Amino acid sequence: MASARLPLDVPAVPTAKLEAFLSAHTTETPFVVIDSDIVAERYDALVEALPEADVFYAVKANPARPLLDLLVARGGNFDVASRNEIQMVLDAGADPSRISFGNTIKKARDIAWAFEQGVRLFAFDAEEELAKLTEHAPGATVFCRVLCDGSGADWPLSRKFGCEPEEAARLVVLAAQAGHPVGVSFHVGSQQKDLSAWDRALAEVAYVADALHHAGHRLAVVNVGGGFPGRYQEAMPPIAAYGRAISSALRDRLPAYVGAMPRIIAEPGRYLVADAGVLQSEVVLVSRKSEFDERRWVYLDCGKFGGLAETMDEAIRYRLRTPHDGMADGPVTIAGPTCDSADVLYEKTDYRLPLALTSGDRVDLLSCGAYTTTYSAVGFNGFAPLREYVI
Amino acid sequence: MASARLPLDVPAVPTAKLEAFLSAHTTETPFVVIDSDIVAERYDALVEALPEADVFYAVKANPARPLLDLLVARGGNFDVASRNEIQMVLDAGADPSRISFGNTIKKARDIAWAFEQGVRLFAFDAEEELAKLTEHAPGATVFCRVLCDGSGADWPLSRKFGCEPEEAARLVVLAAQAGHPVGVSFHVGSQQKDLSAWDRALAEVAYVADALHHAGHRLAVVNVGGGFPGRYQEAMPPIAAYGRAISSALRDRLPAYVGAMPRIIAEPGRYLVADAGVLQSEVVLVSRKSEFDERRWVYLDCGKFGGLAETMDEAIRYRLRTPHDGMADGPVTIAGPTCDSADVLYEKTDYRLPLALTSGDRVDLLSCGAYTTTYSAVGFNGFAPLREYVI
Repeated sequence: MASARLPLDVPAVPTAKLEAFLSAHTTETPFVVIDSDIVAERYDALVEALPEADVFYAVKANPARPLLDLLVARGGNFDVASRNEIQMVLDAGADPSRISFGNTIKKARDIAWAFEQGVRLFAFDAEEELAKLTEHAPGATVFCRVLCDGSGADWPLSRKFGCEPEEAARLVVLAAQAGHPVGVSFHVGSQQKDLSAWDRALAEVAYVADALHHAGHRLAVVNVGGGFPGRYQEAMPPIAAYGRAISSALRDRLPAYVGAMPRIIAEPGRYLVADAGVLQSEVVLVSRKSEFDERRWVYLDCGKFGGLAETMDEAIRYRLRTPHDGMADGPVTIAGPTCDSADVLYEKTDYRLPLALTSGDRVDLLSCGAYTTTYSAVGFNGFAPLREYVI
Repeated sequence: MASARLPLDVPAVPTAKLEAFLSAHTTETPFVVIDSDIVAERYDALVEALPEADVFYAVKANPARPLLDLLVARGGNFDVASRNEIQMVLDAGADPSRISFGNTIKKARDIAWAFEQGVRLFAFDAEEELAKLTEHAPGATVFCRVLCDGSGADWPLSRKFGCEPEEAARLVVLAAQAGHPVGVSFHVGSQQKDLSAWDRALAEVAYVADALHHAGHRLAVVNVGGGFPGRYQEAMPPIAAYGRAISSALRDRLPAYVGAMPRIIAEPGRYLVADAGVLQSEVVLVSRKSEFDERRWVYLDCGKFGGLAETMDEAIRYRLRTPHDGMADGPVTIAGPTCDSADVLYEKTDYRLPLALTSGDRVDLLSCGAYTTTYSAVGFNGFAPLREYVI
């Protein structure tokens, strides 16, 4: 294995099914291969860990049709970001009642189109967006996203989504007055390792619920978002611990007058698909900037614009596997194949790779099933988008 | 115009031809439209400003077929990053002698394929890459890239490309001994505003030339790279000033024993196409995080993963145009339409937009002809890649 940072308790992936595919498959890299069995297992594990929640798969993590089919067959629900994602989920046979249009940023005509298709669950975080929903999705259930600070998450959480709790309290009352069943949502940040993040966020939800209660309305939905992890370099808590932390925070934080527990929604993306995938790449070049440099540069045929966008600021640190693992290694900077100087994957993170590594060697990036294929550029530097196989 | 930072001496763009297209064109945003006349004008202006150089268009900036056709017709040359880019340029009718395979990171089989097509000019910056070239492109002209620090450039220049001058000196001697005509290249960084950057880089070239001379070989090529600017928020020197600075540095820095001036190559990308393009987007939402926030969030239907990748770290600061320009404005954060919290375009840069701006308004991003369409994600969040029209 590639790095001293790799925790010892991380289970071995890939599965035998993935290994068999990789052994047999000798076509051009780069590609991602997904073991759909892992997606099914993860879905079942999350349903078990968080029994009070309806699980909505965040389609943006990986919209491959076989994965949508699998989740439709299992009775799953879908969190979608756009009109095209709604179409993909409907094409896979999902009932529109199982779709949440979870992007807070929607064109009015896309809201109208979604409502026509039967979608009845929508996110918002601003008065202008609520006005669009009231006009184009009358009577639909709408949930207002509150801001979270994102501390403890590996993927940076900006202030892009959500509004301050005071504003959310004002907006949910407006929504209820406009005839919508209303809810509150939040997102603690992707790859969240701090289990108390949900408790902090639910304290904000309680504040909003309180305002709603005093205005004479009922809280219909609490959407606890995503943040459930994949297995990258750092060890993360098991999914059962996430379930316990969230269940306990829901009991503690939602005020008694909420009465019957509102509908609880969770939106896993990464957790369901990340560990199901392996990205296989090829070493294009190993170089040194001067003859006696200890640090080598290793250039792979997949980079930041070819699917590995989450290496931005080295936020997501994938585990690597090479044909020479276990042999003598040394420090490396790892970069992609394009002529873009920003296409560097890891320069600050302490990666080490075998000294024997050379052009033509295959390098596997593990847990690459989430947020890779769709981030891939359409043709930057003439390189084709990342291919994907679901097995 | 959108920002106090906009220098007064920036000429008005878009052209009448672009304006006519934008007025007549009412289909779905986002899209980029390119005025090919500007590309032709810029090519001619650079040839005039730098008469000693052969101009190789950096295809990666915008590989649209009509632009390649135009440059083939003008007798231009092409700097390519990949096998696919070579194919595009050949398909446009370019002679392979006009192609430079300028990526220092190449698979051996792609070098062999390019050589078979007739390509005879290749970049390298490492011993392993040189060995591939000697094996698969015997006798081809090869140029070694030296590291530049990139100070003065807006797009960050990492240590990804090039090697230390001492290493370059060693490698060019090896290359000459292996039967290659040899050259040296550098890149001062994209959108370079410091005209002395070329002089500093050419001092390194002279060091390498010296080593080559002492080993009994001749310097065949000097590749002065790119770095010629587009018109973003900050004022930049005119192209003639770049030409004078480079010509003067070439005369000063190349030692007398180089004899006849080596072949000089320049690789403009951004300069030829950036200002030829307008990206039209639509406002999806304007919001405030709390009711009395002065700063609004403006969400456009094109973001960091839809073609505006160069807003990474707010490196490239586009000029914006709205239907309400000239009316009262206020500070804004500008973001894209995806559910990704990293999809924020400008948060630190001081952008101001009209208070009247609202959902459905069109916003033009000027000088978007370079490094937009090909960076676009293949389908992140279900959004289609950025469309392009060349007129």
